[in-house]
Amino acid sequence: MTVKFALLGAGRIGKVHAKAVTSNPKARLVAVADAVADAASALAGQYGAEVRSIDAIEGAADIDAVIICTPTDTHAALIERFSRAGKAIFCEKPIDLDVERVKSCLKVVDETGATLMVGFNRRFDPHFQAVKDAVLSGQVGDVEMVTIVSRDPGAPPADYVKRSGGIFRDMTIHDFDMARWLLGEEIDSVSAQASVLVDKAIGQAGDFDSASVMLITASGKHATISNSRRATYGYDQRIEVHGSRGAVAAENQRPVSIEIANAAGYTRPPLHDFFMTRYTEAYAREITSFIDFVEAKTPASPSGADGLVALALAEAALKSVSEGRAVKVSEVTGPLADRSVFQGR
Amino acid sequence: MTVKFALLGAGRIGKVHAKAVTSNPKARLVAVADAVADAASALAGQYGAEVRSIDAIEGAADIDAVIICTPTDTHAALIERFSRAGKAIFCEKPIDLDVERVKSCLKVVDETGATLMVGFNRRFDPHFQAVKDAVLSGQVGDVEMVTIVSRDPGAPPADYVKRSGGIFRDMTIHDFDMARWLLGEEIDSVSAQASVLVDKAIGQAGDFDSASVMLITASGKHATISNSRRATYGYDQRIEVHGSRGAVAAENQRPVSIEIANAAGYTRPPLHDFFMTRYTEAYAREITSFIDFVEAKTPASPSGADGLVALALAEAALKSVSEGRAVKVSEVTGPLADRSVFQGR
Amino acid sequence: MTVKFALLGAGRIGKVHAKAVTSNPKARLVAVADAVADAASALAGQYGAEVRSIDAIEGAADIDAVIICTPTDTHAALIERFSRAGKAIFCEKPIDLDVERVKSCLKVVDETGATLMVGFNRRFDPHFQAVKDAVLSGQVGDVEMVTIVSRDPGAPPADYVKRSGGIFRDMTIHDFDMARWLLGEEIDSVSAQASVLVDKAIGQAGDFDSASVMLITASGKHATISNSRRATYGYDQRIEVHGSRGAVAAENQRPVSIEIANAAGYTRPPLHDFFMTRYTEAYAREITSFIDFVEAKTPASPSGADGLVALALAEAALKSVSEGRAVKVSEVTGPLADRSVFQGR
Amino acid sequence: MTVKFALLGAGRIGKVHAKAVTSNPKARLVAVADAVADAASALAGQYGAEVRSIDAIEGAADIDAVIICTPTDTHAALIERFSRAGKAIFCEKPIDLDVERVKSCLKVVDETGATLMVGFNRRFDPHFQAVKDAVLSGQVGDVEMVTIVSRDPGAPPADYVKRSGGIFRDMTIHDFDMARWLLGEEIDSVSAQASVLVDKAIGQAGDFDSASVMLITASGKHATISNSRRATYGYDQRIEVHGSRGAVAAENQRPVSIEIANAAGYTRPPLHDFFMTRYTEAYAREITSFIDFVEAKTPASPSGADGLVALALAEAALKSVSEGRAVKVSEVTGPLADRSVFQGR
Repeated sequence: MTVKFALLGAGRIGKVHAKAVTSNPKARLVAVADAVADAASALAGQYGAEVRSIDAIEGAADIDAVIICTPTDTHAALIERFSRAGKAIFCEKPIDLDVERVKSCLKVVDETGATLMVGFNRRFDPHFQAVKDAVLSGQVGDVEMVTIVSRDPGAPPADYVKRSGGIFRDMTIHDFDMARWLLGEEIDSVSAQASVLVDKAIGQAGDFDSASVMLITASGKHATISNSRRATYGYDQRIEVHGSRGAVAAENQRPVSIEIANAAGYTRPPLHDFFMTRYTEAYAREITSFIDFVEAKTPASPSGADGLVALALAEAALKSVSEGRAVKVSEVTGPLADRSVFQGR
Repeated sequence: MTVKFALLGAGRIGKVHAKAVTSNPKARLVAVADAVADAASALAGQYGAEVRSIDAIEGAADIDAVIICTPTDTHAALIERFSRAGKAIFCEKPIDLDVERVKSCLKVVDETGATLMVGFNRRFDPHFQAVKDAVLSGQVGDVEMVTIVSRDPGAPPADYVKRSGGIFRDMTIHDFDMARWLLGEEIDSVSAQASVLVDKAIGQAGDFDSASVMLITASGKHATISNSRRATYGYDQRIEVHGSRGAVAAENQRPVSIEIANAAGYTRPPLHDFFMTRYTEAYAREITSFIDFVEAKTPASPSGADGLVALALAEAALKSVSEGRAVKVSEVTGPLADRSVFQGR
Repeated sequence: MTVKFALLGAGRIGKVHAKAVTSNPKARLVAVADAVADAASALAGQYGAEVRSIDAIEGAADIDAVIICTPTDTHAALIERFSRAGKAIFCEKPIDLDVERVKSCLKVVDETGATLMVGFNRRFDPHFQAVKDAVLSGQVGDVEMVTIVSRDPGAPPADYVKRSGGIFRDMTIHDFDMARWLLGEEIDSVSAQASVLVDKAIGQAGDFDSASVMLITASGKHATISNSRRATYGYDQRIEVHGSRGAVAAENQRPVSIEIANAAGYTRPPLHDFFMTRYTEAYAREITSFIDFVEAKTPASPSGADGLVALALAEAALKSVSEGRAVKVSEVTGPLADRSVFQGR
Repeated sequence: MTVKFALLGAGRIGKVHAKAVTSNPKARLVAVADAVADAASALAGQYGAEVRSIDAIEGAADIDAVIICTPTDTHAALIERFSRAGKAIFCEKPIDLDVERVKSCLKVVDETGATLMVGFNRRFDPHFQAVKDAVLSGQVGDVEMVTIVSRDPGAPPADYVKRSGGIFRDMTIHDFDMARWLLGEEIDSVSAQASVLVDKAIGQAGDFDSASVMLITASGKHATISNSRRATYGYDQRIEVHGSRGAVAAENQRPVSIEIANAAGYTRPPLHDFFMTRYTEAYAREITSFIDFVEAKTPASPSGADGLVALALAEAALKSVSEGRAVKVSEVTGPLADRSVFQGR
């Protein structure tokens, strides 16, 4: 079987996914859509695909799956539309910035039985997967504490910040997903503190650039997250899982691993300075995994529910900062249907 | 000048300090007191000192300074007594488990003008001092986030736990002091979460064995602390300071640094498994520093106020856990006299 | 301009180069030749190329360059033939196992003015290139000592050993090239010792599996090479350059960089276990570089002369082992025309 | 039993040993001798010992053992004298710079049955001992290749060089001993190359400052040694043992282990810059071990024979450089009595 793809959105991340699809012998890129006609035709041309409108893709018999890389505010409607059209859907995170909108969207996905995968790319990083493998194989025993340090090389422009939904929904959301994935148990409550230390413009835009978060599960497992919008030494992405029998940690990644020794000491180069070079392999594996789900007709993971819960954690964190207290996740989500979100990889 | 010492308490930590005093050419160990006569005479004999009662030491003209290593519940009274006797005082932490008792004790210290140093030994660890040096010399720029991971090799007996004042006063207190020392600014509020994951007996004794803490200062600087009473790989003691220009971290310490490579991978030995071997050098430098303060007749650091604030942070953490909210340090301490606690090293 | 390629040899390494050519927007794979017809057609089919005979490729107007991945004993004749046919040539190392045959082959290359690049892939490894960059930028000062440790994960079958030309021509040859490249000066003499410690069958085939080599240049710069045909922990590839101002070293590479800590210590996974995964990026960059040379019509590097000198060093090492003395490279090569082999990267 | 010591030579290394003796509850420092009367009395005074002449020490009934830290050219005669006087002897390396003189000296030691330990301090370094332990416990399988990189922070004055016996006898001699100790088998032949790259004055004094050495045993085990008289990044002391089942390496040591990260990368401080701080612990353990040998009345290790063989390796290396060939150790030593030098630690 060959999975036939349409790509919605031919921007930066769309190009990454186009390359992944066309490198996969089990997939074919059939169509590309983009509001900017030139962008669509350039990307389609590079890989021998057609330019089509979203309407045409929706009705096309020769499309099995869509990859949604359009602006965030279009995600939920596109998911609903292609769920109804019977296509498998890969959607970049987040589904929406609003928890209620995500819930209503996922209701449609459930009703149509559509395959939906949400783009939490970090789950597919080989190093983080090795951490997860170590956990699953019992090498650290019972998981007790997850520690995540996640810092961007540099702060985004204030303009981006305004549209982003804020640091918790835009940046920490990845760490929330990693924390859940590694704890292997749902978060019960969230405590957060945040401030503006990097760029005053971010504060003026109503957001924070420095945040600390503590999570705790019903059984008492902990996670801590430390975020900053600036790290002079590169894209700082560390996770550690501590358990009853030991701990496992993923080291930071750098483009070259040399060390120079002189009178000033021993110096290794800075880390990757960009998420796309840091997570190159993760993006490729993510789409490979989606193709496998579509081909096998099994539910995809990370699922829509994973996207919803990560967003709810972000909202709970924001509430915790403003109210100075630990916030139950259930305050944000209301009662959730019992989804078994940890079954897969 | 030779500083003439009496040692109060000839137990495990008393022996460490006796060795430090007698190795220092500027100091002499004159007397040892201990409720257990044999312990006192054995230690005194080893170093050519006399066994004396606490009363005799209090009135002795040939004693300049005392080192208090007696049980915690005797600390405050001994500090008051030797303050009034005009002796310089080094006291193991904590001064007392009760904030009000500490405050009344420090009032006497202030009134008598006594020199008092509190035993936060970690400030004297060469690696942590190198971190502090890097901060003071501006190598990380403005401090923004301090990250501390501090885990004991194994849980203490429940019996000890009951007398200890709980994990925050007994274990986290060191991390609170390190966080303040490295942030260079007073903590404004404390959020904590805690659970029992390691040993149910600890829970039955009314304490926790796993804790996470977030601290924030008035200007928005963060610290996070992760504590566990168990680490299978040894005594885990990591600190990191992240700032506007970079970050500095102290690596964990192991007794030997070899690496064995085979089909299972590359393995380095576990860390130190005991605080006294991990902090051997810190204990020696701590007493050296105290001798220097006594000789120079300058105020000692860490001071009684440092001891008070660390204890107040512990109490605030406990309050945060029980009330599920961020607790202001001022709720615990009341208004503090304006002490400049960060002037020294 | 698009460089049009024919690939001679559709085996393991041929596939690697085919992928590199077809991923490069400046190149196109036009034809594939292989003595095994199925191998040729499978690879040609995958990339939309034609199957052609070597004769047809030789005379084809639509071929600019050939990549020679055929068995070693065909290399020299193919280089001569395609030099005369006016094609640019990339040839896997070695040109031949016999120094005199290499010299006569390179004479033809010189006479025809053909572009010839020899496949010393390690020069294109990003980590080793970063080492070279550090040297070129003066960060280690004057180069004084190059230290290379190079160990294979496992010994090759004795059958391979017999055809290989022996450990120095088959394995150490890469290290000889790296040593010259990093010393930046021609080797004057070679001392070597070798033994059979890994597999007696290798000794019975007349070869060694463990070797140590010392090189020295006319100005007194040193290199040492340590080789073994077995390393239980993976493909061990370390280089270090020590100079007047400091040193630079490339660290070993592993597929995932995590660390697991438990009572047995801290363990990182083994290294890559295969040269093709270790040097994936190097192979891609190597062909990219060749394409750039062909496009720019500049002499390629590593050149035929580089291939010749590395082979001569191997022969000198073998002579050193058998005669128990330091062997001058000139004893093997005779006087070499003065080629400036270090001008490039 | 208390071992009663006399110290001959109150210089830099004599002070180190005096501290080790007086810290050991099983030993007592009774007497100090030095040609410089003030040096002797200062050191004796510090530890409550007497100043005595060498003659007085020789005849003293209250002296069990002597530590010889006098100039090298006095070692052999003092060893002979105190062997005959029935004292146990610890002598700093080397016994003498001349192989024949060492042999005649050891003849006296053998005839008198004296206990003689030679000061190869590196065998007592905790990290190198852990390497040896890993080898002895079979963790690397059969030893195949020992790799030693040993570089001094800075070149010694030419004046020292002239008296030193040259780089092989003065510096490499430690590495020769380590290589033998770790190979667990006698060296059969030595190949060396050497040059002057660091300081021309060293060349003018007839010595080298940069050297590479290869050693091989009768069974074909290898060792390589890389020496330089300069390393800008500190005192570089690495050893690695590679065997049939894996490898073990000792990492370099630095006074503090922190890491600073910024836009220039990740920097750790330089290594120790002085052998006495690098090997502090080794010196203390060395004397402790000697005291244990004296107390147990067992032969000491490293023995006089160990000192002789290391010196012979140095002489063979020098011969190899000047003659451009591999030199058998037996060419230098003549036939050696069959001493089992590897029995101990």
